Amino acid sequence: MTNKIPSAVIRRLPRYYRFVEALCSRGVTRVSSRELAAELGFTASQVRQDFSCFGGFGQQGYGYNTESLRSNLSAILKLQNGYRGVLIGVGNLGLALLHNFDFAKSGLRLIATFDVLPEKVGTSVSGLPVLHSDTLEDFCREHKPDIAVLTCPSAVAQTLAQRLVDLGVAGLWNFTNIDLAVGEGGTVVENVHFSDSLMTLCCRVPRE
Amino acid sequence: MTNKIPSAVIRRLPRYYRFVEALCSRGVTRVSSRELAAELGFTASQVRQDFSCFGGFGQQGYGYNTESLRSNLSAILKLQNGYRGVLIGVGNLGLALLHNFDFAKSGLRLIATFDVLPEKVGTSVSGLPVLHSDTLEDFCREHKPDIAVLTCPSAVAQTLAQRLVDLGVAGLWNFTNIDLAVGEGGTVVENVHFSDSLMTLCCRVPRE
Repeated sequence: MTNKIPSAVIRRLPRYYRFVEALCSRGVTRVSSRELAAELGFTASQVRQDFSCFGGFGQQGYGYNTESLRSNLSAILKLQNGYRGVLIGVGNLGLALLHNFDFAKSGLRLIATFDVLPEKVGTSVSGLPVLHSDTLEDFCREHKPDIAVLTCPSAVAQTLAQRLVDLGVAGLWNFTNIDLAVGEGGTVVENVHFSDSLMTLCCRVPRE
Repeated sequence: MTNKIPSAVIRRLPRYYRFVEALCSRGVTRVSSRELAAELGFTASQVRQDFSCFGGFGQQGYGYNTESLRSNLSAILKLQNGYRGVLIGVGNLGLALLHNFDFAKSGLRLIATFDVLPEKVGTSVSGLPVLHSDTLEDFCREHKPDIAVLTCPSAVAQTLAQRLVDLGVAGLWNFTNIDLAVGEGGTVVENVHFSDSLMTLCCRVPRE
């Protein structure tokens, strides 16, 4: 289904989801497209249009039931799909994510991490084994992860990406500043662009 | 000027900027709204509408001059404004950013970092001093940073944010998973939401 949904709409869904989840946890049972729009900085018509991509969840003049909205968004975002992931590069960024980020809450269950440094390989981090990157092929053929998190150095990112594509990994969450070439096989790349976020902040900060 | 620009437009500007900068560096001198739209997943009419917020940069039927577009976007994004920043929390995430992220390219010049751990305070990282967080007030009164990067533990994020707001810091780049309350004083908060990015990826990955 999500194949036909414009990527700009998909990109807005997590923000809807986070807000609606917060409403649910505060016990709010109903929300209007106008309230959603005001909170998220969209227009009410955009909200209704976005939701219409999935058949719409609301009734005219009534608004949306938050619990049903939450569960519909969760299904569309595939948060219960149980995707399995590996993280490659247990450096500072990898460790920061492993220690502090709740992967499962966003739909990904990590099953292993990889690195090449002798002092890391063979240890475990947050309950996950740190395996040698040389064993990536054997591991992936056996365990078939869906997604790889790339927190490796930029210099090895493209080579690693090609190995993962060849192994049938369907999604790459790319934290390096490299624009990865992944061919036409359908592997999806999601880039984390710290720079976009910082530029947005600088643009909004008033300067005396 | 940027006060009147819708935040959704501001949020698209870094993507325009990155793409136009890449065109410039490849020697491409002209680009149409249709090409920009195709590359970025917007409609051509949206591109023209976005740019019209700043008076428009192009001529009908001619497209945009990439170099002039790049320099206009750079000015709107205030990339040359020389904002001064401090980074608070020299843990794994802080170190990852200090070692690998080009702050200056996104408009921010770091002038110091802060932590509380005795083994970190007094050292330097990427040429920046690591100062004790207790000295934040004295430092900020003297050096007046515009922006603070929060890579501290979530447990201390709100307290730190309030201290920074009281010190007149105008922007917070928030990497913690805390929704910061910053009052009505006009301090701008930009949150880095790793979860939105991962949810978007999971949503786009096909599952057999």
